[in-house]
Amino acid sequence: MLKQSPAVDLILSRLLAVRQQSLALIAPLEPEDLCLQGMADASPPKWHLAHTTWFLQQFVLEPLSAAGERLQATHPPDGWSYLFNSYYDAVGSRHPRPERGLLSRPTIAAVLGWRERVDTALSALPELLERLPAARGEALLALLELGLQHEQQHQELLLMDLLDGFSRNPVLPAYDHGPAGPEALWLERLGATESSGRDLTWRRYGGGLAWIGHPGDGRFHFDNEAPRHRLWLEPYALADRLVTNGEFEAFIAAGGYQRPDLWMSEGWAVCQERGWQAPRYWRGDAEFTLAGLQQPRRADAPVRHISWFEADAYARWAGARLPSEAEWELASASDADDPLPQAHGLVWQWTGSPYRPYPGFEPAAGAVGEYNGKFMTSQFVLRGSCYLTPPGHSRPTYRNFFPPASRWLVGGLRLARDHR
Amino acid sequence: MLKQSPAVDLILSRLLAVRQQSLALIAPLEPEDLCLQGMADASPPKWHLAHTTWFLQQFVLEPLSAAGERLQATHPPDGWSYLFNSYYDAVGSRHPRPERGLLSRPTIAAVLGWRERVDTALSALPELLERLPAARGEALLALLELGLQHEQQHQELLLMDLLDGFSRNPVLPAYDHGPAGPEALWLERLGATESSGRDLTWRRYGGGLAWIGHPGDGRFHFDNEAPRHRLWLEPYALADRLVTNGEFEAFIAAGGYQRPDLWMSEGWAVCQERGWQAPRYWRGDAEFTLAGLQQPRRADAPVRHISWFEADAYARWAGARLPSEAEWELASASDADDPLPQAHGLVWQWTGSPYRPYPGFEPAAGAVGEYNGKFMTSQFVLRGSCYLTPPGHSRPTYRNFFPPASRWLVGGLRLARDHR
Amino acid sequence: MLKQSPAVDLILSRLLAVRQQSLALIAPLEPEDLCLQGMADASPPKWHLAHTTWFLQQFVLEPLSAAGERLQATHPPDGWSYLFNSYYDAVGSRHPRPERGLLSRPTIAAVLGWRERVDTALSALPELLERLPAARGEALLALLELGLQHEQQHQELLLMDLLDGFSRNPVLPAYDHGPAGPEALWLERLGATESSGRDLTWRRYGGGLAWIGHPGDGRFHFDNEAPRHRLWLEPYALADRLVTNGEFEAFIAAGGYQRPDLWMSEGWAVCQERGWQAPRYWRGDAEFTLAGLQQPRRADAPVRHISWFEADAYARWAGARLPSEAEWELASASDADDPLPQAHGLVWQWTGSPYRPYPGFEPAAGAVGEYNGKFMTSQFVLRGSCYLTPPGHSRPTYRNFFPPASRWLVGGLRLARDHR
Amino acid sequence: MLKQSPAVDLILSRLLAVRQQSLALIAPLEPEDLCLQGMADASPPKWHLAHTTWFLQQFVLEPLSAAGERLQATHPPDGWSYLFNSYYDAVGSRHPRPERGLLSRPTIAAVLGWRERVDTALSALPELLERLPAARGEALLALLELGLQHEQQHQELLLMDLLDGFSRNPVLPAYDHGPAGPEALWLERLGATESSGRDLTWRRYGGGLAWIGHPGDGRFHFDNEAPRHRLWLEPYALADRLVTNGEFEAFIAAGGYQRPDLWMSEGWAVCQERGWQAPRYWRGDAEFTLAGLQQPRRADAPVRHISWFEADAYARWAGARLPSEAEWELASASDADDPLPQAHGLVWQWTGSPYRPYPGFEPAAGAVGEYNGKFMTSQFVLRGSCYLTPPGHSRPTYRNFFPPASRWLVGGLRLARDHR
Repeated sequence: MLKQSPAVDLILSRLLAVRQQSLALIAPLEPEDLCLQGMADASPPKWHLAHTTWFLQQFVLEPLSAAGERLQATHPPDGWSYLFNSYYDAVGSRHPRPERGLLSRPTIAAVLGWRERVDTALSALPELLERLPAARGEALLALLELGLQHEQQHQELLLMDLLDGFSRNPVLPAYDHGPAGPEALWLERLGATESSGRDLTWRRYGGGLAWIGHPGDGRFHFDNEAPRHRLWLEPYALADRLVTNGEFEAFIAAGGYQRPDLWMSEGWAVCQERGWQAPRYWRGDAEFTLAGLQQPRRADAPVRHISWFEADAYARWAGARLPSEAEWELASASDADDPLPQAHGLVWQWTGSPYRPYPGFEPAAGAVGEYNGKFMTSQFVLRGSCYLTPPGHSRPTYRNFFPPASRWLVGGLRLARDHR
Repeated sequence: MLKQSPAVDLILSRLLAVRQQSLALIAPLEPEDLCLQGMADASPPKWHLAHTTWFLQQFVLEPLSAAGERLQATHPPDGWSYLFNSYYDAVGSRHPRPERGLLSRPTIAAVLGWRERVDTALSALPELLERLPAARGEALLALLELGLQHEQQHQELLLMDLLDGFSRNPVLPAYDHGPAGPEALWLERLGATESSGRDLTWRRYGGGLAWIGHPGDGRFHFDNEAPRHRLWLEPYALADRLVTNGEFEAFIAAGGYQRPDLWMSEGWAVCQERGWQAPRYWRGDAEFTLAGLQQPRRADAPVRHISWFEADAYARWAGARLPSEAEWELASASDADDPLPQAHGLVWQWTGSPYRPYPGFEPAAGAVGEYNGKFMTSQFVLRGSCYLTPPGHSRPTYRNFFPPASRWLVGGLRLARDHR
Repeated sequence: MLKQSPAVDLILSRLLAVRQQSLALIAPLEPEDLCLQGMADASPPKWHLAHTTWFLQQFVLEPLSAAGERLQATHPPDGWSYLFNSYYDAVGSRHPRPERGLLSRPTIAAVLGWRERVDTALSALPELLERLPAARGEALLALLELGLQHEQQHQELLLMDLLDGFSRNPVLPAYDHGPAGPEALWLERLGATESSGRDLTWRRYGGGLAWIGHPGDGRFHFDNEAPRHRLWLEPYALADRLVTNGEFEAFIAAGGYQRPDLWMSEGWAVCQERGWQAPRYWRGDAEFTLAGLQQPRRADAPVRHISWFEADAYARWAGARLPSEAEWELASASDADDPLPQAHGLVWQWTGSPYRPYPGFEPAAGAVGEYNGKFMTSQFVLRGSCYLTPPGHSRPTYRNFFPPASRWLVGGLRLARDHR
Repeated sequence: MLKQSPAVDLILSRLLAVRQQSLALIAPLEPEDLCLQGMADASPPKWHLAHTTWFLQQFVLEPLSAAGERLQATHPPDGWSYLFNSYYDAVGSRHPRPERGLLSRPTIAAVLGWRERVDTALSALPELLERLPAARGEALLALLELGLQHEQQHQELLLMDLLDGFSRNPVLPAYDHGPAGPEALWLERLGATESSGRDLTWRRYGGGLAWIGHPGDGRFHFDNEAPRHRLWLEPYALADRLVTNGEFEAFIAAGGYQRPDLWMSEGWAVCQERGWQAPRYWRGDAEFTLAGLQQPRRADAPVRHISWFEADAYARWAGARLPSEAEWELASASDADDPLPQAHGLVWQWTGSPYRPYPGFEPAAGAVGEYNGKFMTSQFVLRGSCYLTPPGHSRPTYRNFFPPASRWLVGGLRLARDHR
């Protein structure tokens, strides 16, 4: 029997608070926004709310029911599992991703009703856990934590996707320009960091044989952050701040988008085909944001919403390069007294590292093993976190990943160079 | 001065009633449905409501304002004209049709507010008309009538488009299964007609030199129905009823979708590429309708939602052919004592006539001249009207038209053959 | 027994002469040119030579063999029937058209060897015909004539396709600039016609009830030219010459390619998408031809290689319209003393008539019934013939047809207007 | 003055021998084959012959002429540089790759004539080198060596591309089945290696801090093989032979192409979309090769023409993984007494390493700097060499690279696993 009610209560209260936060995120939206899907890569807000609920239903509640535990009924109507599965092949077939915006039904009311039933069932888990053998209890706690982290990821995706969807509307809607809105948070953080816009300083690191990856000390991490392992690094230097809008404007003024010699061949082709001339949400000297069009764009703010290809081209133009993910992690983790500035909370930082498994990587058993491991081709790792990332969802070992042409995530860059 | 207030009042009261009916059409919808666009050819309900308002604003109210008439302010916010223009090149550029489903804003409330302002301004027109010179008054009345007819067309489109959108949702939503809903009307009309499902009888027509086209007697007609003109017809026969679901099932059972010899080459390619095996909304032995899935499908009901290619292949298989539009019009118009059964109110009837201008056709001057005339290639004419067509919107000379691969309109067929 | 050796001999000697002419057509080509396929709509020269042979093998020689007649062996190696069938579904599946350029094998030598065997077998037919019952003999003669006409069509296609293929090569190769080449013939014919470039005169025709279509008097015609039938025409006028390059330049200078009001909606979309700014083979003030780049382009020559959409837009701009195919045919056939100038031998002339079956049309039985009938959607009829059309392959009732966006055929236009 | 005539003569005689070998490669081809381009990724044989000549013209002869050296005239006709540039942006715009198969002109005779003029000019270089300052002479020698290596790469590409092109022809042509043909060489090498088909043995390697990359000892290497650098490896094991056809058949029989859990998500999507069911050239129990269809396929031969995705899925199914490129290089280079079997000369071996620059990588200055460096995204490294690789073109540090969905290169795999 598991005597860990405190841990359970703690996870559950955190999970339910995160679930509540998802509802808060859609509060500023109009009903029509709930079905908005700007492109195949993005999903509508309502879908995110339903999918995160499906995740808990599928991986937490269903297995308990299947194991004979008596829970409040939370099974959704027929067909919802097909609709709200994202990519778990082991669970069955699923609705095509590009058509999520066509799901005007089930209504938001029906989805929220389901969310509530699931949350109620989750609230009853502490009682159940007291009866569960320790191993099963531990596994259940781990799945609850995964459900929580998963929902946080979707909170960031929801806002990214919404910005994409709104950006395609010529009336340029604003999600929220209140003092507690995401853009206000961005500006507040910009104010708090002293480094933006000032001269760049290089921070030097000695390299050598080093360890990266999550230490596996019981704190939560995704499977792709493990195992912790050794690697060899040559001495290197990292910029002490992110590249700014002003600097990126200089790159554009210098013909950065017209010089194939600065670009990877694949990136140059994408750039030509899509007619890229500036970061994704720049509009003249303004920038489209979740608070609507911001004019003028702040020159001292970190550039955001650029692809890996643009980050890489910029770095080459600047006579530098992107950091490897190991370089970034070591710098970020190395020194509590003098932490790497702007590591978290502004923009995700593209690295030069393709997203591949760490040596000895093992995906989790079962369907949750599809969480990360099967995406390890043709993507690059980003490190840090951004202003849309929920609190508590950042750590030095976190590996975010996107294809190199992606621009709708909050991607920016920090320069690196060899130091010999 | 124009002493025609009765005419004005009549048109206006009809127009405002039609406008009111548009609102009634969206009453059964959930908010998320208002932005639903199932495919590039279709438009969301909210867009239809906004576009029909834009039409009146652009072609009725704007010119009056531009001519110095004092009207209540109805001009929409900047950019709405760009959003809600459908295809009028002369009016300027416009939002890409396939992206109408991305317009979660302006909200339905904002659109309805605009509708109300426009309707209020329209209500004041009788007073204005009294002051207007007769010619301008006549022109204004004609535009009001056009606005009315245009809105009726969009009422039918709205329901067609919605059926398409809902059909793409695995939960198969129903628009309305009440006794006043469109499917109830369909069934009621099926009951009223004695001909469905019974043996087919051929009605013979003598041919010869004949006149078709709208007589231009002052009653409303679209420009493409004129001018009335002579043509020569050989003797022919028309079926006295529409082809039924049961008959179409026999075509399928006989391998109709596997025999290229029955199909036009272009149609066979489309059929293979899209994997057609049955009419668009058949699901096994059921049929998806605006009242949801109807099981079993009625064998005696006219087949609906087939493309021209399927209608043509069926006719060939049946040893018959499609009627020409002239044959259909003459049969439909010929005899008040013995009218052509099932000519109107069930399904539009594909003809073998490509959609081209009548001899001597002249499009209207100005942007409204783009209404019909520029679509006269690669489409076929359909005659009659369907159960979604608003009351008062049917006549023997009406020329509907769609590309031959279209299946989301309510298209069916009536057989014809030579009679020599 | 059929005592018609003279007829047989005549057809055969004509057929073998036509077959010989196909070989003459590839004489100026380099080996690599034989596989050149510029686009999916076109075919390589070698394929044309093989396909016309397949046609005779499939529809003339095979049935005779199958009927037990002893013929020299002409059956090609396994798989060739699959390769060289064009579109006859009844004969079986076939190699995808867009991949004909990938058939570097069989070699030209192998193809020519097969041609020779087939021609030898054909040469033995007179003897066979003497033994054949009259009806079968007649049928055989009809198929031989069809094979001859079919090969002539492919001779024109071969040159059209080659011009397309060469036009995609930046070195702009010339097929032949000798005095007997096709471009020399074009110039010679231009010289012979007095009408090009001079002021346009309208020729008036009275209309009324008229007959069009092939009289079926025993002379060869394609199935789509029959049956001869009556129709009603209003009085009309036709230009006494074709529209010239100079006139088309004026259309361009007047913004013809920038004014959507001149275009059908479908054509405007195509024009925008493909960036049309001039006829297909214009290069600045030069024109690419089978004799290479001709500079300057002759202003008085008929414009060639324009689509139906461009022809239609030009006519609208010029305050005229395209003739119907009936108008063209009647004018062309009407008066031996005063024939319609430039009716034949320069450019095919787009008409305003969609390509549809004549009333009472019946395709031939069997696979040859696929020759014309299954293409009767989404195409327009062209009348006349062009400078690439082989001698003896023109007549007033001939119906050529292409989709309205096609530009690689030798299409031009003659203006028409109502005359009331 | 450079006293290195022996070095010059050596390079030149090797280069001219390689140039001669290119001509030998096309000897078995029919003229039509010279223009065959099966897909956008491939190029026609004639293009390869012209492009390798262009490379020498552009990077060796042109700069000498530009520097005032008197050379025999080798400049090609206008426009050829546009046609035969592959991807060097710095040199100017170029003919679109997917349209190389449309270049029926210049003819092979013209191309071979140019080759001969270039070779003649190259033959005169020793004399020139005697007059050149040492630094320029060294640079010239380096470019000649690069031209040689470049031509060898294209020799392999020519055969790969040809196999692709022939495989699309239903008559399945054979390039060459003589005793000196590539397939004969493949079989001979299979016979020479004792390891194919027998039980697999794991060879263990200790890992630790290791050096990889070309030592830069004056012998030729491509820029992407440098700089030599340190990295850390954990202990690992490599299979002592390649995976065989027989083993891959077992993977297929076990449902390998139906189990998404074995595949990367991107690979599974590609597999579904393209309908992969077996390696690219398997046809039932036969295999299509440059010697035509080989039936039955040899079970003990290494599997070839599989994508990275298939190699990765196979390894996962087999409970193993792909080696990293460092693991492969160290194993291959480590022990002269006990070399890694089947490292070279059979199939290229997919590694788990994305193709990225080595730490400190610097592309060469000028246009030749585009040789490798700009392709370092979304590709994987292959190591070893294959039976189509020219003699002298293999080494342990060689980094070949292709996108993970590529199957037309000769790609196979060797298993690896951790050894702890």
